This record gives sequence, structure tokens and C-alpha cells, in this order.
Amino acid sequence: MTTCCGINIPDDSDFSLSNLPLGVVSFQDAPPRCATILGNTVIDLSVLEEAGLFETVPGLSCNVFNQSTLNSFIEHPRPVWRAFRQRLHELFSQEQLSSPLCAAAFHNVQTVQCHLPVSIGDYTDFYSSREHATNVGIMFRGKDNALQPNWLHLPVGYHGRSSTVFVSGHDVVRPCGQLQKDAEDPNQGSVYGPCRLLDFELEMAAVVGGPPNTSGPLTMEQAKERVFGFVLMNDWSARDLQKWEYVPLGPFTAKNFATTISPWIVMTAALEPFTAPTSAGKQEDPVPLEYLQDPTYSSYDICLTVAIQSEVQTQPHTISTSNFKNMYWNPAQQLVHHAVSGCIMRAGDLLGSGTISGQTPDSYGSMLELSWKGSKEVNVGDEVRKFLKDGDTVVMRGHCQIPNGGRVGFGDCSGKVLPANTKL
Amino acid sequence: MTTCCGINIPDDSDFSLSNLPLGVVSFQDAPPRCATILGNTVIDLSVLEEAGLFETVPGLSCNVFNQSTLNSFIEHPRPVWRAFRQRLHELFSQEQLSSPLCAAAFHNVQTVQCHLPVSIGDYTDFYSSREHATNVGIMFRGKDNALQPNWLHLPVGYHGRSSTVFVSGHDVVRPCGQLQKDAEDPNQGSVYGPCRLLDFELEMAAVVGGPPNTSGPLTMEQAKERVFGFVLMNDWSARDLQKWEYVPLGPFTAKNFATTISPWIVMTAALEPFTAPTSAGKQEDPVPLEYLQDPTYSSYDICLTVAIQSEVQTQPHTISTSNFKNMYWNPAQQLVHHAVSGCIMRAGDLLGSGTISGQTPDSYGSMLELSWKGSKEVNVGDEVRKFLKDGDTVVMRGHCQIPNGGRVGFGDCSGKVLPANTKL
Ligand SMILES: [Ca+2]
Ligand SMILES: [Ca+2]
Ligand SMILES: [Mg+2]
Ligand SMILES: [Mg+2]
Ligand code: NI
Repeated sequence: MTTCCGINIPDDSDFSLSNLPLGVVSFQDAPPRCATILGNTVIDLSVLEEAGLFETVPGLSCNVFNQSTLNSFIEHPRPVWRAFRQRLHELFSQEQLSSPLCAAAFHNVQTVQCHLPVSIGDYTDFYSSREHATNVGIMFRGKDNALQPNWLHLPVGYHGRSSTVFVSGHDVVRPCGQLQKDAEDPNQGSVYGPCRLLDFELEMAAVVGGPPNTSGPLTMEQAKERVFGFVLMNDWSARDLQKWEYVPLGPFTAKNFATTISPWIVMTAALEPFTAPTSAGKQEDPVPLEYLQDPTYSSYDICLTVAIQSEVQTQPHTISTSNFKNMYWNPAQQLVHHAVSGCIMRAGDLLGSGTISGQTPDSYGSMLELSWKGSKEVNVGDEVRKFLKDGDTVVMRGHCQIPNGGRVGFGDCSGKVLPANTKL
Repeated sequence: MTTCCGINIPDDSDFSLSNLPLGVVSFQDAPPRCATILGNTVIDLSVLEEAGLFETVPGLSCNVFNQSTLNSFIEHPRPVWRAFRQRLHELFSQEQLSSPLCAAAFHNVQTVQCHLPVSIGDYTDFYSSREHATNVGIMFRGKDNALQPNWLHLPVGYHGRSSTVFVSGHDVVRPCGQLQKDAEDPNQGSVYGPCRLLDFELEMAAVVGGPPNTSGPLTMEQAKERVFGFVLMNDWSARDLQKWEYVPLGPFTAKNFATTISPWIVMTAALEPFTAPTSAGKQEDPVPLEYLQDPTYSSYDICLTVAIQSEVQTQPHTISTSNFKNMYWNPAQQLVHHAVSGCIMRAGDLLGSGTISGQTPDSYGSMLELSWKGSKEVNVGDEVRKFLKDGDTVVMRGHCQIPNGGRVGFGDCSGKVLPANTKL
């Protein structure tokens, strides 16, 4: 336990003084405001802003935190994020806040409601874990053609649905849709019904920051300056809907019903001490095309878990332990590739990493892989699962461990499965 | 020529009194405002609103037209759109506007700048012309497997990129990206370079209106009430980028560099007199699943053309003449299917129809089909094309003809191809 401005920070808190993530919260009936969190204390940044405490931050506009999204702040260029973060650290570490200010700005996390931290202009999902792509490839095409020919040459990605990105805690209704009538023969057509193979995908998402690239593509250097921070992400997936619909234009109703993200954006600066080689080692076979080459190719050592709690259980049971290092293409490479065609990237855009699977079966990031396409049962406490059941709550967590205590973590990314709505 | 409130409406104008489409324009340095258009006269709706002329419209909120997008207006439920449209018609047909009001509200179309009419939360593109899907299928998979097994059972669609939807007149830079090195052998990998097979896709897009369906899917009846109106759309496509990247998650950089729409949203009510059977006839083989059945299955008789004007030519040359009737799945079916999983549809969402190809080669909606994958030349005045060249301006037009004169049309959907930016 450490203490800071009268705030107690438990040793196992995701929100140490080294973190200072940003989010959007509301207190009772007040409108949503930008905030940070230390231990279990949420700090209303609009109060500190109004008190003039950020006036020394070079380049920071006025009234960016008394808003219902972080977009205005995130649109600033990276030097402003860095200077602001330093100022925030200084305010707390040097205990510069007066008691009346603390009283006005501090709230216990139990008393606030978290909202989506950004207005997401566009949400993109990648497919950048080699282990995940290989597992899916083996299941659907066999071992010899597991990876598609393009996979090692570019970060495969597709556009997702931004209207259904929800913040942690939002319930997820089991989707209905079209299911292939005969599992082996697509020519038999389809039936309408609730998804029977509901799944999660353990992902992280990068939040894009900075001004839009209206004049063309980004260089690798520019892309790195535009990765504002990260959240955990559950890309809920209806495997049976997906199987029937995805050829040739990709997943659609199988994915667009819900995506859940954790509420606090951990800034890239907070993750830099945890820079680590990717589990893929180097990208030498093949070497990526020049525009995709990252001279400091690496990832972050972020320990990730997925747990399930059924309706009759009293706590979540961990079913997978993975790590963000298990990514072949990193967020800067994803962003460069996204913009290579001239695509405009705006502050608040969300880039899902793709399912984060490691090499061992206990590190797979989806039920599809953990149950190996439903061929085996996965232990969830004293129950078993192949896919998700109604009433299951899926809880994803992630953190970086600071060597001498303390954490930089993400808080929960959780959602409960509600029964299908079959009114149609 | 007819005259209305002192406005001359040429007989061949897209914007007769039967149309009254909505858009967003700016005059000199003033901020963008909502507007309608009659002949060549743009009418600033915020001026009429401020004069209290819409106060009799039941349910219409205040200050919806002095905004830079139509979203506030479009979020109203359908009865409000209808009552507003009726009021607008009444104001002009009964010549109820005073001279000072006309002076304040009327602008020659040459003096205004058009903007995107809506803020697009999410943009989706479908693939709903049977002829187009069949043509593409024959080219890439042969005649026997032309249509994928799911195609006749659901409107195939995918999520697109909303950040690069531009209004007519915006230049389109030829995209760069990854191209398969050897056309026959994907295992040889890729090279970086400018797209060589740049294409257009002739489409229309439905604009979603009404309040979001936060409580679940839409019925067919509800979906119909949420189609606010239509624009023309050019879904610019880089065929070589697409070929290399699209398996298994769909097109990405091949599409996300630009999509162009026409500036004026023609309301569904204005198109209803032009309701027509689809060229597919009935959907009997197979009959769609119940949720996709439209008891009044039909389309609109909208004549569509695509023309190209090269940099040295003085006018556009028509290369394709198609019709919106050439769609197998209609917008209500697309919307119902989009939301079947519970996907939330918001006012301003854009639903591209998919390339609109008819049965004859002169009605194909893309260069890919017109040049049959580059195997033959397409005449463009005294030049020829297989795909688009730098300097080409692509102009799409569409209109419904009123039997005794006058039109309900869309104005131009045009864009000029600029040379690639190869700075990377
Ligand atoms: Ca995913
Ligand atoms: Ca298209
Ligand atoms: Mg998702
Ligand atoms: Mg497009
Ligand atoms: Ni750990």
C-alpha cells in the first residue's frame, strides 16, 4: 500500500501512480467528464482543469476535460499528451492538491459510472497473432495451408462496427441470425435462430490520437506518434453466423452485435517501460516490405487473462492466460498499413489487435481454440464449456508488473451473456 | 420551364418541386447549414426555420437546420419527415415566402459549397445485384460456381470506412499498397506500389433515419420506416490491392481510401411514385427466410449513368446505363438483415447497395465488368480504357422521370483521379 494525496493505492491495484490512465465517468446525475484513476479513487480532471492546474501544459487547449469524450484531448499532438501526463504525475507525486480541491475532484470508484472513453469514428479489427491465425487455419483448412499466403506480408484486418462498441459492464444479448442448415453442405441453405456457438476473442485495442492524416499515408515514425494508448477488448463472435456469411466479404452479423472495451485508456507512455521482444522474435522470413519495417520492432509485456463466471458461480474462473507479446504485427505496423492507401485516421479510432493466442493451449484467446472447434471441454470451475452459455460473464484482465511493486493495469473488460431475443 | 416563388426550374433539372432533397451547404465564409434545392436555387432552411415557418410541423425540434449536418433532423421519426416535406412543398407551391425572406434564403447553386449531408456513424456496403455478383463470380471462380451458396439467402455485406466518405467533387488520389508479385502464384509474395487497376463501382446508398434500435432487431415494417432517403455512391476500388488482401476477412485498403456520395439526399417519399418491380422479379427460388420477406418486395425505377471525362476531353462520355431496379435485395431487406443480430443502426448510417449491374454489358457498374477483367477495351469518346487513368473524372448521375415533365434526380456524384502519392 502506498499513499498519495491522501489516496490509498493497494499494491495489487491496476492503477498505480505509474499508470494514470484516462477515461470518462459520471457522478450521479452530472454529465460525463474526463477523469483519471489512482487506486480506487477516480479524479475528475475537469475540476483540476477549472482550477487552472493544467495551464502550464504547453499547447493544451482550454476546456478539453469538461467533455463527454476524450477526443478533444487526444486530437492534440503527442508532445501535449506527454507534457500533460508529466504534469499529472507531478501534481500527485508532489502532493500539490489542496484539500478543498481533493474534496471536489475525488470520487470513490464504486460511486461512478464509466462511459466509453472516446467517440469512435471508425473501429477496425486486425488478425495479427500468428498462433491464432494458424490455429484457425488448421481447424478450417488443415495443417498444410494453415496461414493464407498474404498473412506474413501484411497485417490482415477488416472494418468493424463502431455503433456497438460498449464499455465494460454492458450486457451482451445472444445474437440471432442465419445458420447453415447442414454443417457439411452449404447448398442446403440456412435457418433463422439464435447463435449456438457464441464466443469471445481476447484482444487489446490501440486508440489512435493526433490530427488526421488528410494529406496522405503515414510513415512508421508518424504512426508511432499517433498511438495514444490501449484498452482491453472482447470481440464477441458468433461462430455459426460467421461460418455461413463470411465468404467472400468477411464477418458481418457474426461480429457487429457487440464489442466490449475496458473503460480506462492506458497511455502508450505508461507502457514503454514494459517494452519487450515479441514472441515471434524477428520478422525475417519474410522481411516485411519497407513501409512496414519497424526499426524497433517489439511489443509490450502485458499479462492477460480471460475468466468465466457462470450464473451459479460466485467468482470468475481463469480459462486462459496470454500476453500481448504474442503478436506478430504490432500496432504501429497495423496503423501504417491501415493508412497506406491514404485512409484517413482520426483521433478516437480503435484498432483491435486480433485475438491474442500464445503457443500453448492454456494461452488460446477464444473458445473456438480452447475447445478446439467444440471437440473438447474446457473446465470452468466445476462446470465445463465448449462455447458460452446464457448467464456467463466473461472477464478479461491485463496488467504490467513493476519490478519493485505496483502495477500498470487496465481494469476489467467484462460482459454478461443474456438470452437471445427471438421476437422476430 | 416552371416558375415557383420566382425560381425558374428548367425541365431537365433534377430538382423539381416533386423532389425537395436535403443537403448541407455553406455560403462564402458562413458555417455550413441545412438546405434544399429547387432548379439551380439553393434554399437555406435555417433562414426559413428562424422565420418560424416550420413551427406548424408536429414533433419537429427547434434549431435542427442551423447545424452542419442533417443528423438532428433525420433522427426524428418518419412522421416528422413526412410532415416537414409536406410543409416545404406547401411553402413553395403556394408561394408563401415573402420577398425579403427569399432574398435572405435563396442562393444560386454556383455560389455555394456542398458538404457531406450527414455525419456518418457507420458505413456499410452490400453486394446485392445478382448480375454483378454473378459477373464477378464467373471471372474469379468460373460459371458453375458463380454465386456463392449464401448469396441468394442473405444480402451479403461488409463494414466500410466512414472517415473517407467524401461529397461529390472531392479528388481521389490513386492509392498505393500491396500488390501480388506474380498474378498466378500468391506464394511469391507482394510488392509495394500504386494501384494499377483502379475502378469505380456504381451504387446508391440508403441513409438510415429515426431513433436507434437499442432494444434489439428491426422488423421489416420498422426497417421500412427507417429508410430516410438515398444518394448516389461511387465505391472506388483498387482491384489489385483487393485481390491480394481480401482472403479471408474481406476488402480493406482496396476500398478504404475513398467513397464518394452525391450531396443531396432524396427522401424516400419523393421516390415512392417511382416504385417498380425489381428486374429479378419475385424471390421464389429460394424464398427468403421469414425475417427477410418483404410483402411489397420492389425497388425504384431510377435511371443511372456512369460517364468518364479524361483530362484532355471537354465533356464526360457515358460508358454505362443501369437502373436501381437491378437489385435483388432491397434497402429494407438490407437494413433488416444488418440489424438481425441486434446491431444498432443510427441516424446518418449509410448503406451502400452494392454495384448496380444490369443484364446487358452496357449496363455493368464497374470497369472490372465493362472491360471483363481487362480483357477488352471500353470506349470513352475517342479514347479507350480498361481501368481508370490519372486525370479521369468519373461522373455518376441518376434520376426518375415524371411522366408529364420534370424530374426527381440526384445531381452529380463525381470525382477526379489524381496521381499516386508515392512518398513512402
Ligand atoms: Ca477479432
Ligand atoms: Ca461496393
Ligand atoms: Mg466485435
Ligand atoms: Mg468505398
Ligand atoms: Ni501477472
